[in-house]
Amino acid sequence: MVGFALFGAGRIGAVHAANIAASSKARLAAVHDVNAKAGDAIAARHGARSAHSAAEVLGDRSIEAVLIASSTDTHVGLITAAARAGKHIFCEKPIDLDMARVEQCRREIAGTGVKVQIGFNRRYDPSHAALAAAVEAGEIGTLEQLVITSRDPAIAPVDYLRVSGGIFRDMTIHDFDLARFIANEEPVEVFATGSIRIEPKLEAMEDFDSAMVVMRTAKGSLIHINNSRRAVYGYDQRVEAFGAKGMIVSDNLRATSLRRSTKDATDRLGPLLHFFIDRYRDAYARELDDFIDKIQSGGDPAVGFEDGRRAQILAEAALESALTGKVVRVDYRTGG
Amino acid sequence: MVGFALFGAGRIGAVHAANIAASSKARLAAVHDVNAKAGDAIAARHGARSAHSAAEVLGDRSIEAVLIASSTDTHVGLITAAARAGKHIFCEKPIDLDMARVEQCRREIAGTGVKVQIGFNRRYDPSHAALAAAVEAGEIGTLEQLVITSRDPAIAPVDYLRVSGGIFRDMTIHDFDLARFIANEEPVEVFATGSIRIEPKLEAMEDFDSAMVVMRTAKGSLIHINNSRRAVYGYDQRVEAFGAKGMIVSDNLRATSLRRSTKDATDRLGPLLHFFIDRYRDAYARELDDFIDKIQSGGDPAVGFEDGRRAQILAEAALESALTGKVVRVDYRTGG
Amino acid sequence: MVGFALFGAGRIGAVHAANIAASSKARLAAVHDVNAKAGDAIAARHGARSAHSAAEVLGDRSIEAVLIASSTDTHVGLITAAARAGKHIFCEKPIDLDMARVEQCRREIAGTGVKVQIGFNRRYDPSHAALAAAVEAGEIGTLEQLVITSRDPAIAPVDYLRVSGGIFRDMTIHDFDLARFIANEEPVEVFATGSIRIEPKLEAMEDFDSAMVVMRTAKGSLIHINNSRRAVYGYDQRVEAFGAKGMIVSDNLRATSLRRSTKDATDRLGPLLHFFIDRYRDAYARELDDFIDKIQSGGDPAVGFEDGRRAQILAEAALESALTGKVVRVDYRTGG
Amino acid sequence: MVGFALFGAGRIGAVHAANIAASSKARLAAVHDVNAKAGDAIAARHGARSAHSAAEVLGDRSIEAVLIASSTDTHVGLITAAARAGKHIFCEKPIDLDMARVEQCRREIAGTGVKVQIGFNRRYDPSHAALAAAVEAGEIGTLEQLVITSRDPAIAPVDYLRVSGGIFRDMTIHDFDLARFIANEEPVEVFATGSIRIEPKLEAMEDFDSAMVVMRTAKGSLIHINNSRRAVYGYDQRVEAFGAKGMIVSDNLRATSLRRSTKDATDRLGPLLHFFIDRYRDAYARELDDFIDKIQSGGDPAVGFEDGRRAQILAEAALESALTGKVVRVDYRTGG
Repeated sequence: MVGFALFGAGRIGAVHAANIAASSKARLAAVHDVNAKAGDAIAARHGARSAHSAAEVLGDRSIEAVLIASSTDTHVGLITAAARAGKHIFCEKPIDLDMARVEQCRREIAGTGVKVQIGFNRRYDPSHAALAAAVEAGEIGTLEQLVITSRDPAIAPVDYLRVSGGIFRDMTIHDFDLARFIANEEPVEVFATGSIRIEPKLEAMEDFDSAMVVMRTAKGSLIHINNSRRAVYGYDQRVEAFGAKGMIVSDNLRATSLRRSTKDATDRLGPLLHFFIDRYRDAYARELDDFIDKIQSGGDPAVGFEDGRRAQILAEAALESALTGKVVRVDYRTGG
Repeated sequence: MVGFALFGAGRIGAVHAANIAASSKARLAAVHDVNAKAGDAIAARHGARSAHSAAEVLGDRSIEAVLIASSTDTHVGLITAAARAGKHIFCEKPIDLDMARVEQCRREIAGTGVKVQIGFNRRYDPSHAALAAAVEAGEIGTLEQLVITSRDPAIAPVDYLRVSGGIFRDMTIHDFDLARFIANEEPVEVFATGSIRIEPKLEAMEDFDSAMVVMRTAKGSLIHINNSRRAVYGYDQRVEAFGAKGMIVSDNLRATSLRRSTKDATDRLGPLLHFFIDRYRDAYARELDDFIDKIQSGGDPAVGFEDGRRAQILAEAALESALTGKVVRVDYRTGG
Repeated sequence: MVGFALFGAGRIGAVHAANIAASSKARLAAVHDVNAKAGDAIAARHGARSAHSAAEVLGDRSIEAVLIASSTDTHVGLITAAARAGKHIFCEKPIDLDMARVEQCRREIAGTGVKVQIGFNRRYDPSHAALAAAVEAGEIGTLEQLVITSRDPAIAPVDYLRVSGGIFRDMTIHDFDLARFIANEEPVEVFATGSIRIEPKLEAMEDFDSAMVVMRTAKGSLIHINNSRRAVYGYDQRVEAFGAKGMIVSDNLRATSLRRSTKDATDRLGPLLHFFIDRYRDAYARELDDFIDKIQSGGDPAVGFEDGRRAQILAEAALESALTGKVVRVDYRTGG
Repeated sequence: MVGFALFGAGRIGAVHAANIAASSKARLAAVHDVNAKAGDAIAARHGARSAHSAAEVLGDRSIEAVLIASSTDTHVGLITAAARAGKHIFCEKPIDLDMARVEQCRREIAGTGVKVQIGFNRRYDPSHAALAAAVEAGEIGTLEQLVITSRDPAIAPVDYLRVSGGIFRDMTIHDFDLARFIANEEPVEVFATGSIRIEPKLEAMEDFDSAMVVMRTAKGSLIHINNSRRAVYGYDQRVEAFGAKGMIVSDNLRATSLRRSTKDATDRLGPLLHFFIDRYRDAYARELDDFIDKIQSGGDPAVGFEDGRRAQILAEAALESALTGKVVRVDYRTGG
């Protein structure tokens, strides 16, 4: 049984807490949140203790791993401290909104030997994962084009958007990681452009609510991502991989398999699963499970710190491209 | 060029006239309708002459074939006269509503050597035909079950229903033929049941607007047909063939390939093609083309008089079953 | 916490045991199986005790409910004994293969006041349940036709088939219940026919591997069921409800949402969920949950003893119809 | 009856000839091809005369309109000559591969008053047109994103590619026009990138076989196009329009509605319609019909010379972007 401490008792923290509690290979030992009430509530629900401070948690020898689901600005501090304390780390994306801090964190944890997994849940979605496996197995021959559609059901409140880091660092970052995962090649050039069509207040934040990206890899594979902060028909999460021998699409999911036909339309399907908590429910369980397996059986996490760093490098490049109107070449060594 | 005379200038006659006119291998020479104005109109549209009587048409040596699309009660008389006059015959279904007259017609035209094709259009629908060909080619191994769904978009006027011969002779007859065509086996037992859910006036006619049929062949293949006189979502025409190695479905068709996603529903498709004139447009052209080919190149029509007779035997059996509540065994020799 | 005892530690017993153990409102107290090893294993997995006899279990006051997943011939005995002991009962279908024993059981448990739920899992499948709810809500107006397709992926071993009670009592019984659930009307006439296309040894058992049923309700709703013991493409479980205002289909489910396009075919979907354990995974959890709710909050189980009995009456009628070739009228009072 | 002369008796010329011949409002008077045999053959098939020279055709007063389907390098010469001769002009795309010649042609035909329609067939595809109409009708609210997938089934021979003008001028040009048509806004910025993954000989031609484009309009609508010269699963032609109130997709078409389920896969659909002659069969007939209507009833062609010119301006911008790696701003006044 791997003893876990959870940092952050918000919506996503609650999902992780429940998955840890439900696992036969892990137990939730402690919860810490700056909002003590929120921490107490989750701790009580799963029979864990609510810790007053991060230090208290990190000093507890019975805790083997931490799950960081607190606000983004706390990630780097917690990662660094946990690594020094010898705890394995599962951290929600992004590592940090500031690339310089990401680089510094990378240096600080180098050599600590703890396992670090970044919470890119899409890699663990059964359909996206099956698509990636089929591409890897050569089902469509050489991959030539990848098209990722990723649209949220509704735009987040302005207060959230203000601290989100912007659409590329907050939203597209998932798609950058998914693209790297499926293509199994590194994008070397990034072009991005964004628009404000939904929330005019984004203007003052130099942010966008609609975006399109084109990337190319060294071999010439072409990758397109489109994002919107508001798709009224639901959380639209599709991937299309096209290659020399065919095409595979990972399509959206719905709560039921109902098809309705009436006077106006035929075979209409029900609404999409509403948002990430529903759509990626299985993915959250599977990513945790894989992390625990790696702790118990050895081996590197499938989505490591470097993956988190590289997705972020692509997000930075996309933002630069969208602001300058120029294609940005990516250098993963220097991080820019 | 095969010279054609058309009997009957109604809706379906107009379709056949246009197809004859558009064929590079046929010409529409004459049109006859008891309603002279209707006949004149179609004749004028295609540069044919409007004939005053059937006799005049049948005496014309330049006419090689007749297309009978007049009212059902005229079919047997026209078939018999045309056969005696040595004209090839394409006749809309059914041959006659009275099985005894069908049998007599059969005897009278025996030995005349003219080609007779019955207008079972579904056999020529590209999708249904491709399904039949795939079954014939062994794609699903031995056929074990066949499920035919056949529902009209809206119930016909009571005046039509009154002379239609009832749901089994008027509507299901197409499905009986399609079942024989795809199964390539003869049904030997028929069970049918009907309900009145749409048009109460059918009560007095001993007719139904909703029906379900189960048939079995000598080998034990099972066939289900369901019919409704009113499907608000359109003309529902589906076939499902199930066998030892798999299943093939011939699905409905729509005017466009549009899929719409809005707040309420995702991927809703457009309405079905409205009714038989639209749904089986290609089938009408293809059945005529095949008939002309058989005239020019020899060979028996793919859907002959005997096919028309057998579908009708099944319709009679279904009606008897629905009225008596008993399974009816079919004997194709005696026609009952 | 409702204390449960499980009778029967086979495949389906294991599913129920896991669901009880995972429930926050129930605990698995005891397991009994005639095969003590099997019972021990499941008991050990969930921290329950393995009981030597049914009597021991029924005498345990801490046990409030029993889950009967043992072989069919033990059901009536366990139901009767458990009812006398005042335990609530969840029993897998069928109640018994012999209608006379079902009737006797009914009399014996009358007045004991325990809750009895029969394991018709399909009612709890999210898609089938959503279809039933939509019909109930009037979405398609008056229901007129119901078409249920239910085909197993592979035929069971002959040893199983020999004691199964035959296709109608073993397999179609689920569809009879589903039809009653969705139609919310009682079938009053049953026609059925069966064939042997897959397993010739069924001949000697007077059983079938392929079957088609047509039923009608007093109002004239028509219901079709088709069954096969072997669909090579997987566990085919579909429901189509057709009414005055439209149609709703509950379609099959697949493990992923992948669509593949290659030289030969486009948009092919992955295989269906393999069999009932996978297809109805959610349904098993939901039916147990509902049973526990009824124990804790009061109210009758949604699928009671009488539902089990009526589905069985339909199965008997279908068998009689298939053997005699006659339509069978159903009388639910006398059970025949 | 509009008398037509056809220039060019190749594959696409043959399609137009058949459509003219089949129209009740037009007749094919003359055919001219530099390959006299090809011209003779098509002329003979439709009862037209085979003309020895373009001049002979243009001097014929009975000819009211010309259909230019000859090789691209002859387009401008024929357009100019026909305009001077007062003939209405239907010209296949592109106007010319050299933008300077397009501009000169534009000046030369200015004021001649003849109608000019460019053969952008996709606008007349029933599904794409229905999508455009739905967008125009406001079904999805303000359009925000447009995604066009356009992939050929197989790469053309190198000899064709060499004179094609490159992927953007030859292939993407259709998508540029379709984007302008559906968005009803002008793209003002173009980013494009191309790869060579299929035909290495394209290297020497500075051409690509795979391409991705992102464009934005003045209002901030984002448009993505992806192209491949080879999709083994067939001619992939899809459009996705996304807006404030929903999404509409115009999906691919297939020859039949068959769905097959076997051991390996379920619901696989048949192959896509093979290539443009099949996929856009209806579109070819409809564009000609619309052109004839405009000649007879007045009004400007729906796809005029200026539309041909603007699509070409976008193709030039895309090529420049792909070669320089920079976003290109478009100025439709100066054509660059």
